[in-house]
Amino acid sequence: MKLTELYLVTIITERYFRDEILEKLKEFGATGFTLTDTTGEGSRGMRASDFEGKNVKIEVVVSKDVGNNIIDYIADVYFENYSVIAYAYPVSVVRGDKYV
Amino acid sequence: MKLTELYLVTIITERYFRDEILEKLKEFGATGFTLTDTTGEGSRGMRASDFEGKNVKIEVVVSKDVGNNIIDYIADVYFENYSVIAYAYPVSVVRGDKYV
Amino acid sequence: MKLTELYLVTIITERYFRDEILEKLKEFGATGFTLTDTTGEGSRGMRASDFEGKNVKIEVVVSKDVGNNIIDYIADVYFENYSVIAYAYPVSVVRGDKYV
Repeated sequence: MKLTELYLVTIITERYFRDEILEKLKEFGATGFTLTDTTGEGSRGMRASDFEGKNVKIEVVVSKDVGNNIIDYIADVYFENYSVIAYAYPVSVVRGDKYV
Repeated sequence: MKLTELYLVTIITERYFRDEILEKLKEFGATGFTLTDTTGEGSRGMRASDFEGKNVKIEVVVSKDVGNNIIDYIADVYFENYSVIAYAYPVSVVRGDKYV
Repeated sequence: MKLTELYLVTIITERYFRDEILEKLKEFGATGFTLTDTTGEGSRGMRASDFEGKNVKIEVVVSKDVGNNIIDYIADVYFENYSVIAYAYPVSVVRGDKYV
């Protein structure tokens, strides 16, 4: 079987936090990540223009355990004071054994 | 519990329609959005080169009700005449209570 | 009913392989695709800086059968020697009859 059931965790944040979050993701066991430049407007009512070229979407494919640790970390460290979006959903991954 | 079950609605469209769609999403109750520049080829056979730098992916995390309203709107207003892709799937959102 | 249950297949790869993969996706029956520039680090430990501006995310909305063919192809042709990520998940697509 070529597919493994894993989780895709997506974090969208100011680019300022990118490197410290990536370090943490590796500590938690993520073996890779994908970065995409984005712009956006968050639940605090900030305008897209204020963030033009300033946000980053971080995506990692991880096991459920690693995903839960990442989510707890993001919720605990960033949600109180910063505009961060984080969500997870199950994905069927080609050769997913490489990621766990 | 830090996770809330919500829906991620993705709309991929010509950038020309970006602002009018974003206005509508807010009217329907979306509290934020993420924009990503994309290129692509749609089901009408247009070539990627024709759209180089011209498409935008709009992503919103919303309740099922808001998501359904957005989907109905996109289907009714844009699908007849324009090249638009729109899809939705359930996501587990960190501190998702902020989005509803 | 405006929604059709289909699959979103995502392939993240070096841009060098973009065009040959897109050709294959069309052969398998994909009627459109979305491209996003990304950077990243894979399970072989390459640094993000080595790939700056060099990766592409290819997304296609397809039937389960087409998706399985795409996944088999990616697994067979690219996974042995190249840094490729590929995963799939179900999505509810607006006017999805256009894609099958």
